[in-house]
Amino acid sequence: MVNYPDGRKATTNTKLTNYGKRGMSLEDDINTSNTYYLQIDKAVIYKKPTPVQVVTVDYKSRQTARITEAYYRTPSTTDYNGVYNGYPLDFEAKETHSATSFALRLIHPHQIAHLERVLRQKAIAFVLVRFTAHDETYYIPADKMIEMFHSGRKSIPYSWFLENGYLIPYKLHLPVDYLHIIDTVILKGE
Amino acid sequence: MVNYPDGRKATTNTKLTNYGKRGMSLEDDINTSNTYYLQIDKAVIYKKPTPVQVVTVDYKSRQTARITEAYYRTPSTTDYNGVYNGYPLDFEAKETHSATSFALRLIHPHQIAHLERVLRQKAIAFVLVRFTAHDETYYIPADKMIEMFHSGRKSIPYSWFLENGYLIPYKLHLPVDYLHIIDTVILKGE
Repeated sequence: MVNYPDGRKATTNTKLTNYGKRGMSLEDDINTSNTYYLQIDKAVIYKKPTPVQVVTVDYKSRQTARITEAYYRTPSTTDYNGVYNGYPLDFEAKETHSATSFALRLIHPHQIAHLERVLRQKAIAFVLVRFTAHDETYYIPADKMIEMFHSGRKSIPYSWFLENGYLIPYKLHLPVDYLHIIDTVILKGE
Repeated sequence: MVNYPDGRKATTNTKLTNYGKRGMSLEDDINTSNTYYLQIDKAVIYKKPTPVQVVTVDYKSRQTARITEAYYRTPSTTDYNGVYNGYPLDFEAKETHSATSFALRLIHPHQIAHLERVLRQKAIAFVLVRFTAHDETYYIPADKMIEMFHSGRKSIPYSWFLENGYLIPYKLHLPVDYLHIIDTVILKGE
């Protein structure tokens, strides 16, 4: 079964708006979506800043501390979290250029461990996966991604996403409307 | 009314353990508490990394990208958030050396705006305020702090915290057990 929350039409729309999306990263599109959710007071979701290990800071003036030596650290959690209408949300986003599969090495073990922890705390946890070749972004419930991660596979075929994921509708002001999936699929049974 | 969730005894314990706490910042104590919550699988709460605006990166080797020019940015949200047993949590932590009052300029307008937003999304939102002179840390529900912030006052007297805040019990492995307040006070009516 293919999960198109908006039916076939949604796919057609996605293809049509392809030109406008080109060049925008998944991260940019999620940030745009989160800003829109914030503006309409629908949800408060932020990307966590990339952790930086600061080694040396130059305090020339009182106001501007200039960092002169620092290194990127590996994040110990997922990139995004926040709150939506009483629900805690937590998710990671990944992009792949492959048209046929998603390499599981793109997800780090500590991110899986974090998703397992927040699931135990009853968060709505998921992974957003974009296939740039298809110009499609899928919502994958965290438990399904975790299962695949522990399966011993090296990658997940594209067809798996069609069957297990939810295609996220695209709109110009809301390029990754993942709350639409949460509203229509995840919370529908509640 | 003074809100001592554990009765007078809790205050006595706090005083007795004073020597062990000395020198530890509120941030350190919250991090210790969050690590403990994580270890016992009680909650998943993290401090957001301080946002850094990276200007120049030196890519000498493939593995180690060295940041050679960067600046601290003002965070647009509170410092802490996460999930606790299905509840979204969001909070800020502030320390004051004054024994008599808490200066409201210690809280930034964007942090108040953020707390207002997450409250509208039904998060459990609060501010932790430590009076280092008294060696006490109080849990203040966000709506009460927001009210004081908009009152036009420049500071909040210490006595206000005794009446409106909840003194957080101190334990060595759990120096700021704010979930105790959430369990015994905030969620009690549910």
